[in-house]
Amino acid sequence: MIANTPKPPYYAVIFSNIRTEIEEGYAETALEMVRLAEKQEGYLGHESVRDGLGITISYWKNLDSIRSWKQQTDHIIAQKMGRKKWYSAYKTRICLVERDYEFMI
Amino acid sequence: MIANTPKPPYYAVIFSNIRTEIEEGYAETALEMVRLAEKQEGYLGHESVRDGLGITISYWKNLDSIRSWKQQTDHIIAQKMGRKKWYSAYKTRICLVERDYEFMI
Repeated sequence: MIANTPKPPYYAVIFSNIRTEIEEGYAETALEMVRLAEKQEGYLGHESVRDGLGITISYWKNLDSIRSWKQQTDHIIAQKMGRKKWYSAYKTRICLVERDYEFMI
Repeated sequence: MIANTPKPPYYAVIFSNIRTEIEEGYAETALEMVRLAEKQEGYLGHESVRDGLGITISYWKNLDSIRSWKQQTDHIIAQKMGRKKWYSAYKTRICLVERDYEFMI
């Protein structure tokens, strides 16, 4: 469940969001977007949690791969639907991951 | 609940984690760490969600403020307890936030 990303540097897109109460179409589209993202060139993994606040972080090889994903046709439609129906607020942060370290029992 | 961070550049520390079943001392320490972090020089905000996977992102002015927080005495003790008792796995990513954009109804 913790994304198994390569050695830095790579990129992270942090998508922090708050949902509306509209469920219609949300779950299907969210799942479809994960499937599509996984097929994109430069996709490295993602982590997603919701508990009131939602945080989805996707990891990418470079800025070009993020740009391509942002402009993918079905993703553009989903973004528009997101603003129209599913999200009351969100913030997206494009980040260069400079270092990482991990722990495992 | 979405952190009200300033204009980039600034830093994000993404802490993705999986808990053990040990509850003893966890909630109090987590709360105390948030209180202490808020007092640190360069602290800009944080977002935290858990639903099986836990993601806590803290935002910082620069690498120096992250370093100071990492070395804060009570935080070092909490980190050791975390590895000994509370977390079965975690990954920490130090990230330069280069761009952000937001949406609000």
